[in-house]
Amino acid sequence: MKLASLKGGRDGRLVVVSRDLTHATLADDIAPTLQAALDDWESAAPKLTALAEQVEAETTALFRFRERDCASPLPRAFQWADGSAYVNHVALVRRARGADIPENFWTDPLIYQGGSDAFLGPRDAVPLLDQAYGLDLEGEIAVVTDDVPIGVTPEEARAHIKLVMLANDVTLRALVPGELAKGFGFYQSKPSSAFSPAAVTPDELGGAWDGARLSLPLLTSINGAPLGHPNAGIDMTFDFGQLIAHAARTRRLSAGAIVGSGTVSNRAADGGPGLPISKGGAGYSCIAEQRTVETLLTGAPVTPFLKAGDVVRIEMLDGRRHSIFGAIEQIVEAW
Amino acid sequence: MKLASLKGGRDGRLVVVSRDLTHATLADDIAPTLQAALDDWESAAPKLTALAEQVEAETTALFRFRERDCASPLPRAFQWADGSAYVNHVALVRRARGADIPENFWTDPLIYQGGSDAFLGPRDAVPLLDQAYGLDLEGEIAVVTDDVPIGVTPEEARAHIKLVMLANDVTLRALVPGELAKGFGFYQSKPSSAFSPAAVTPDELGGAWDGARLSLPLLTSINGAPLGHPNAGIDMTFDFGQLIAHAARTRRLSAGAIVGSGTVSNRAADGGPGLPISKGGAGYSCIAEQRTVETLLTGAPVTPFLKAGDVVRIEMLDGRRHSIFGAIEQIVEAW
Repeated sequence: MKLASLKGGRDGRLVVVSRDLTHATLADDIAPTLQAALDDWESAAPKLTALAEQVEAETTALFRFRERDCASPLPRAFQWADGSAYVNHVALVRRARGADIPENFWTDPLIYQGGSDAFLGPRDAVPLLDQAYGLDLEGEIAVVTDDVPIGVTPEEARAHIKLVMLANDVTLRALVPGELAKGFGFYQSKPSSAFSPAAVTPDELGGAWDGARLSLPLLTSINGAPLGHPNAGIDMTFDFGQLIAHAARTRRLSAGAIVGSGTVSNRAADGGPGLPISKGGAGYSCIAEQRTVETLLTGAPVTPFLKAGDVVRIEMLDGRRHSIFGAIEQIVEAW
Repeated sequence: MKLASLKGGRDGRLVVVSRDLTHATLADDIAPTLQAALDDWESAAPKLTALAEQVEAETTALFRFRERDCASPLPRAFQWADGSAYVNHVALVRRARGADIPENFWTDPLIYQGGSDAFLGPRDAVPLLDQAYGLDLEGEIAVVTDDVPIGVTPEEARAHIKLVMLANDVTLRALVPGELAKGFGFYQSKPSSAFSPAAVTPDELGGAWDGARLSLPLLTSINGAPLGHPNAGIDMTFDFGQLIAHAARTRRLSAGAIVGSGTVSNRAADGGPGLPISKGGAGYSCIAEQRTVETLLTGAPVTPFLKAGDVVRIEMLDGRRHSIFGAIEQIVEAW
């Protein structure tokens, strides 16, 4: 089934959306918000599934579903643990700063604690506070869990994945080095993220979902020009089972926890940095990687970071070219 | 007024507590949970204040208030931004690792994004997963805000402070260096924190509250032996106005955001590291500082980190020796 949260109140209004994302129905009678549904998922999920069947059969009152009416599926969340599972991305972005990655980055998952109290909606503008901050997008896959106990294994963790969605993990590149140098991790350099209009249960992903990885291209564009279409199932060094287990090693996760994959990134066929779209490559899910490869190829970055008026779009299509999650489409707006 | 959340459900049950922490009344009619009250604070606060007056006058139905029945005031929160405002603490703890602090630590606040989906209650056991992790307490002051806009100034930020409480920011010392070396900040090294039974409005603090700093000793003990009583108003390099402004520089904070002071720490009269209680000093709010000073004084740390059965207590008394927030009192329990 596909779920979304219409804008309204601090936590949105839960709706069940048709598979083709054209129609929806309110799920108020089952749970007023997605967080409320997740708080009592064992009871809510079968009822929501039954309602989703009614939506497909058009046997319940439907209204036109508009992605622009949506908040992020969880407009605010209690936990946003963002991994960096495509270690290729980390290696490339660090190389741009002249920094290598430690060997254990390939064996020990990297996760940062994200801020989760004020997500942007999938069609909300991204505020540009200062051009000098180096505003960048990061296209990611994210999962939503139920309650996860301390010490869960990667294998056990898979069963805790209840929903899948896309994310734009907005990043202020120029603020990153200073914050990382201070050692306390990202804070100001990671302003509010946005998520896709729909969050879907894993069964909606068919064979593309192996229980911990989603093997489909993530389509990212800026102002209509493709930036990348790397396959999210390729070069994912740590799968979602491993990321969740890492996050829950010393503490439990509560229902509604969001765990992100980090920027989706594929290497080139020869194992080196992936090529840009213009050179026939799979491209990138953030500008920083494209700039790094430009620097490697030509000695200097060419693509600028985002500026006012730019439009970012992140989407994923199924085998029949239908949008699975709806699109994150955000304009950059001067503050 | 003083507010608390009785255990029950994921977000507790909001109660108004008498000033002397002996009695309470349910606030269900006003707001079922503290988060709900904060979501609509402008409307809820006057009603809660009126109820608090009834509690003092004993003109409403009261029951015996027991701190052990409490969850943390916000059993889960959407934002937990923990500062490190007592730079003295950071300098000392780093010195123990042979690391200096950069000059800008004295001018640019240090904040890490904490996990907020599963706080411990003030009397809940702290799980000891592995003795080798180096389990430590951190006694802190924390404030709860209403909605804070992007770019708020330190002066403006003061008016957004709605509640004050104490925190035990549990830390796994042995996991810190590895996580900081990876650059993404704390994650596994910061398991679930706990907060004092009561969260109080700033007016309850009288002259000890200057709008951004709380000038009273924070009393911390282990197994009944005092660890420290540093004054939280002294050596606080960045006040809560500055911490909130730092947290809201690139993103808004939502109602119910918790902002922490970091471990309360005082220097000695000569400007050097504070002395332990046994040497007539103000002592410490965490074991790591005590161990650092022991190393400086004798060449090696003496005090061990927490072990199963240890009991940590964190409290603050008013001018008449009455507990303001109730006590955080947690036993360490083998997992």
